[in-house]
Amino acid sequence: MILVVALNPALDVTHHVDGVDWSGVNRPAEVLSRPGGKGLNVARILAAVGAGVHVLGLAGGSTGDAVASALAAIGVPATFVRIGGETRRTFAVVDARTGDAGLFNEPGPAVAPEEYERLCVIYKKRLADWSAVVLSGSLPLGLPPGSYAELAALAAAAGVPVLLDAHGEALLRGAAARPAIVKPNLAELEALAGRRLAAAGGPDRTAVAAAARELRAAGADAVVVSLGADGLWAVTSDGCWRAAPPLVVTGNPTGAGDAVAAGLVRGLVLGHPWEQRLRHAVALGTASAAASAAGEFSYDHYRELLGAVSVCREEAR
Amino acid sequence: MILVVALNPALDVTHHVDGVDWSGVNRPAEVLSRPGGKGLNVARILAAVGAGVHVLGLAGGSTGDAVASALAAIGVPATFVRIGGETRRTFAVVDARTGDAGLFNEPGPAVAPEEYERLCVIYKKRLADWSAVVLSGSLPLGLPPGSYAELAALAAAAGVPVLLDAHGEALLRGAAARPAIVKPNLAELEALAGRRLAAAGGPDRTAVAAAARELRAAGADAVVVSLGADGLWAVTSDGCWRAAPPLVVTGNPTGAGDAVAAGLVRGLVLGHPWEQRLRHAVALGTASAAASAAGEFSYDHYRELLGAVSVCREEAR
Repeated sequence: MILVVALNPALDVTHHVDGVDWSGVNRPAEVLSRPGGKGLNVARILAAVGAGVHVLGLAGGSTGDAVASALAAIGVPATFVRIGGETRRTFAVVDARTGDAGLFNEPGPAVAPEEYERLCVIYKKRLADWSAVVLSGSLPLGLPPGSYAELAALAAAAGVPVLLDAHGEALLRGAAARPAIVKPNLAELEALAGRRLAAAGGPDRTAVAAAARELRAAGADAVVVSLGADGLWAVTSDGCWRAAPPLVVTGNPTGAGDAVAAGLVRGLVLGHPWEQRLRHAVALGTASAAASAAGEFSYDHYRELLGAVSVCREEAR
Repeated sequence: MILVVALNPALDVTHHVDGVDWSGVNRPAEVLSRPGGKGLNVARILAAVGAGVHVLGLAGGSTGDAVASALAAIGVPATFVRIGGETRRTFAVVDARTGDAGLFNEPGPAVAPEEYERLCVIYKKRLADWSAVVLSGSLPLGLPPGSYAELAALAAAAGVPVLLDAHGEALLRGAAARPAIVKPNLAELEALAGRRLAAAGGPDRTAVAAAARELRAAGADAVVVSLGADGLWAVTSDGCWRAAPPLVVTGNPTGAGDAVAAGLVRGLVLGHPWEQRLRHAVALGTASAAASAAGEFSYDHYRELLGAVSVCREEAR
């Protein structure tokens, strides 16, 4: 059973409008509400591929209630610590005619130290129950940047492997706490490295590999960099790997990184070798990018893609 | 104490963004959530001018909970009958730089006959408690267009005056149930009359007066037509009246009609003559239009405007 920590979940509301009047009154043809935020996207994808998963999160207000009940409705078990603030919404307006999508992400509530402490108590008490822990998404206001590092260190001490998907200081500090996998995207790795890692033609593989090695040297056992349509670059204890999808898909790239994270942690708990982990992760990420909503994918499309993903061991550069 | 019936309330969510990217990711600087929909706007304005008010409404899901708790937080007492569907949201995205506002109105839940029946039982039982009843806003899916007529007839039988603010068949049928006041706007009156009532220069007063007289002949004791910046035109048992604001204001005209309705029903229960009712209604409507959010207004601005509104008795045309 995989534990997914969701410190800053969201209710994702999507309005589908046929021909949006951006300065007038619109009546959406379709309205969808889903549990969202990176952690809950990972949890939903894990549940959809049949992995045992449990969510431990913070939720508040009626939007927090909506997130909790929507998650229960799709059969993902969860424990939410109540907070005084109101859980955030994200609001997407998709123009069915042009494909344009406007995204409006609310900042989210501030979390009080004693609220986070209540979550930590539950986290510590049940840590031995999990085969892996996923720490994913931005930290809410009010929590120090070392929060993921603290949770990762507790897991490492208990012998539970961690996948960390964060950015900035939370990623850097978290990497020092010896997670099994960190999964930055190109922009996050560039921000951390303090230099550009891509040229006009796409990611500069030598530069990406060097920056990933630096992050691995900071403490992570493996660094998997997601490069969008260019797939994944992994620096692991079993060498360097490149995994690429067979084709560029059109759809909604939001959430594709969460599908990659779900594939990686699933392969970790199943004890798969890196070649297989990366194949599943790219297939899941590509199937997710081809779907219209974050955290959704076609299971059949994922299975079809598995055989078409190319995974190569690379010379260390 | 005035009863406001809210069959289709909403949670109004407003995102303020400084320079919207309509096809990209935005992080709103400010997010506001308010109880909304026409009925709840009227109730909030009545409470703000010190009138005793109680809301009787239908609410469901976590959005229904959010509406009920937001209303309680601003001190408006309410009784909500729970429904199985989820109360609707409206989303407004306001660009602080250009003033453009995109509005996205969810369709709202369907109401089952037995849910509406539960509301009717409470309505009938407590009808004698109220000095007036406000029936305002669109009927939810699932309710027949005669629903307001039914509620208005029950009030008329109990000797409780009704203000009806609806459109189409709900307005036409409701008018036949002898409400004290109906308050269509120009577009609603045109739709009912089946002809244009305005020329290039603005409303055609003779045509508006004739259509209002027809609606009064259908059963309403008074017809007050809201003409936006041109103020109000009233056909009453005390003759025809025209009331106009002193100036055109810029702000948010959404909800100005609800402020007018609040002013009219407040004057009705206080036994004010029509000249005074219309003066307060125009001042409230104008102060509301000058405010940035529907159902909000500056009390001081309202009091300042009172002396500047012009109210004239008109010859019957």
